[in-house]
Amino acid sequence: MEERLKQQIAFILEMDKMKNIKRQTYLSDGRRKENDAEHSWHLAVMAMLLSEYANDEVNLNKVLTMVLIHDVVEIDAQDTYAYDEAGNATKKEREEKAANRIFALLPDDQCKMMRGLWDEFEEAKTPEAKFAHVLDNMQPVLLNNASGGKSWREHEVKKCQVMKRQSKNQEGAAVLSRYVQEIIRKNVENGNINDE
Amino acid sequence: MEERLKQQIAFILEMDKMKNIKRQTYLSDGRRKENDAEHSWHLAVMAMLLSEYANDEVNLNKVLTMVLIHDVVEIDAQDTYAYDEAGNATKKEREEKAANRIFALLPDDQCKMMRGLWDEFEEAKTPEAKFAHVLDNMQPVLLNNASGGKSWREHEVKKCQVMKRQSKNQEGAAVLSRYVQEIIRKNVENGNINDE
Repeated sequence: MEERLKQQIAFILEMDKMKNIKRQTYLSDGRRKENDAEHSWHLAVMAMLLSEYANDEVNLNKVLTMVLIHDVVEIDAQDTYAYDEAGNATKKEREEKAANRIFALLPDDQCKMMRGLWDEFEEAKTPEAKFAHVLDNMQPVLLNNASGGKSWREHEVKKCQVMKRQSKNQEGAAVLSRYVQEIIRKNVENGNINDE
Repeated sequence: MEERLKQQIAFILEMDKMKNIKRQTYLSDGRRKENDAEHSWHLAVMAMLLSEYANDEVNLNKVLTMVLIHDVVEIDAQDTYAYDEAGNATKKEREEKAANRIFALLPDDQCKMMRGLWDEFEEAKTPEAKFAHVLDNMQPVLLNNASGGKSWREHEVKKCQVMKRQSKNQEGAAVLSRYVQEIIRKNVENGNINDE
């Protein structure tokens, strides 16, 4: 087998581990928590359908690639819950190390391309990265809202924490940001999110 | 909330059910079977990396959209195992009915677009659809091979069945077709696939 294809297949098989990385968010039916592969797929479906709401014109291909791979570093670094302060203090270092190892499985050109898009997502400055972050923030809100706030309640999440996490959505997609704010308002009102 | 966004969110939440549709293929570690959301995500990652092997130039965006949604009809119609003859006899009718219901959740323009791509995938005539089918055929072979042929062994799958399923790969991506053939040859040799 050609070396190039061998490297690509090694990366593709490594990706299978994403299916075993659990997140804190429950599926909409509340029966179990979702994993990184499912989450990334859901973001890609959202990107296809909601890109019309991005503040600036976005290259959909770039957004799709970003959301499909944005969490691959969690294969080594594990998922860090959005409201876990201790975990978030070491997150960047752990994820950089993971990115170095995992993307290096690919042929050089694809390693550079994927790593470049992963870095771009992390920096959150381009229209594509900002929009991808809106989706990444919004999807757990949709699922949490559908499951009766199950993960918010379990972690006794406070309104100020949710608001902080969602605060940059308006930079990427103002319409979706307003939609998310409305869901949060309702979940503060019904007690799923702690109003302090 | 605007009616259009409401419809889009309804579809996005409906999609969450894909995470509960079990396939017959085990993850590469053999510990559990994968679901449709995970499978679709894996195909999208493969599409990003392997499109250079498509026989004809493909529009990657179109391939990505196809693989992300190709299995949504299984929300109503359930997964039909590739080697289940009885199930495959009624598959088309069940899936058409499901497509009618599910895509109709979307605003008209996106319903038409998604349904169009789903039909195009099913017809398997365009370069994008042929390439997407290669990925859809190849991914379970990669996982089965990685798990020691677990699903092939459980279902006592015969060589002629696998060869039939994989027979059209060369129309979409000759290089990947040869790669798949080589994996099958090895798994017939080691007894994971029944040599009759």
